[in-house]
Amino acid sequence: MSVRRLLLIGIGAGDPDHVTVQAVTAMNAFDVLFVVRKDGADDLLAMRRLIVDRHRTARAHRTVELADPPRPWREAADYAAAVRHWRRQRIALWEDALAEHLAPDETGAFLVWGDPSLYESTLAVVTQIAQRGRIALDYEVIPGISSLHALTARHRIPLNRVGGAVQITPARLLDDGLPEGVDDVVVMLDAGAAFARLPAGGIEIYWGAYLGTPDELLISGALEDVAGAIVGAREAAKKRKGWIFDIYLLRRTR
Amino acid sequence: MSVRRLLLIGIGAGDPDHVTVQAVTAMNAFDVLFVVRKDGADDLLAMRRLIVDRHRTARAHRTVELADPPRPWREAADYAAAVRHWRRQRIALWEDALAEHLAPDETGAFLVWGDPSLYESTLAVVTQIAQRGRIALDYEVIPGISSLHALTARHRIPLNRVGGAVQITPARLLDDGLPEGVDDVVVMLDAGAAFARLPAGGIEIYWGAYLGTPDELLISGALEDVAGAIVGAREAAKKRKGWIFDIYLLRRTR
Repeated sequence: MSVRRLLLIGIGAGDPDHVTVQAVTAMNAFDVLFVVRKDGADDLLAMRRLIVDRHRTARAHRTVELADPPRPWREAADYAAAVRHWRRQRIALWEDALAEHLAPDETGAFLVWGDPSLYESTLAVVTQIAQRGRIALDYEVIPGISSLHALTARHRIPLNRVGGAVQITPARLLDDGLPEGVDDVVVMLDAGAAFARLPAGGIEIYWGAYLGTPDELLISGALEDVAGAIVGAREAAKKRKGWIFDIYLLRRTR
Repeated sequence: MSVRRLLLIGIGAGDPDHVTVQAVTAMNAFDVLFVVRKDGADDLLAMRRLIVDRHRTARAHRTVELADPPRPWREAADYAAAVRHWRRQRIALWEDALAEHLAPDETGAFLVWGDPSLYESTLAVVTQIAQRGRIALDYEVIPGISSLHALTARHRIPLNRVGGAVQITPARLLDDGLPEGVDDVVVMLDAGAAFARLPAGGIEIYWGAYLGTPDELLISGALEDVAGAIVGAREAAKKRKGWIFDIYLLRRTR
């Protein structure tokens, strides 16, 4: 039977040189590039194009733009249900697009910021399309430098402390403060500024935005000393660029 | 003032193609490669040589082998103190080696498996040497594909679930069971088989060893179904190769 093949290529957190040799090979192996357009993120689309242009030497490829249903609101009462609904819509739209634009025996690709496993839904959607079986689909995941590793590299800090655990959490789980039993917490998907609502004292923060790009911002220090500066830097950057990608590590002082 | 420069290069979890373009550039930018020899890990030394040979096209470089003090025993009563002592010994030995073998204005490099931030002490040692100030030292961290991302890529699974947190933990913190408040836990540095001592039921495991290498092993399933197979595979592999690098994700069934 003829099988369509998909590559989910992690392209790193922003620096075009964070792309791996495996990803470069994959970027030269696809026939069709699927891209998802999001409102107000033309910069991101342009950055992805730059990465492909820089690393692809193979023949010309086709690009198919996928419609993206409206994203669930992060503060929704039942966020998990909202995400499930959004994913069902995506599955239907993407399945149609794969059937129409990717011929059997061809290889398609998605470029994913950071690593495809971390707070990223492309892999889940593709897995479900493959499991439904309406089209025969094989897929491969190419790991990337996640913003996690880009953050610690730019601050030149270890992620964990000796013998300790690290938690990675979406900001919405910080409403009740830092989780118990773990002193090092990486926060992602913070649409507000959850760090500024934590009780001050005994916490260091290492914050980074637009990591690895010419717009990169880095601030670190005792949370009570730098929280205001980070809030200000985020607001100014969002106003200037229209979007922000940021991440931070909260570290309880030992 | 003349400054010695050090590059801490993350080289990925085992697959030579996990090296990034930035790491390839760094591998062509050093004068001296510092390597740490560990007992019984000639394989690892050979794999590192292979990675440099594959990606370095620059002129010949010098290699300096560093003595490594005996590693602390992971089950030590005061593990953190044992690690501190071990690091003090390393700092003294490495500082001497840098002063002797790396000329001012030269660039040295360490190749680090995975990413330099994750359960890896090279960065902490280098930071402390720089802070002591006996030799003027500048250093840069080049992020790598960690075993975390290699594991999920090979199993083709997301690391987190929708809206959920993820914990990364050394195995010794699993003595009291899975941590509370988090359903997805990545376990590293498991010299025993901590997963096999967890209460069975309601947990899936995704295990991988020698990720990205020709020896790669992958096992996944309900913990009670596959724990025995993983224990057997680990023991056989350790006997065959003399060492093992493995990592696993424990996922509470929702």
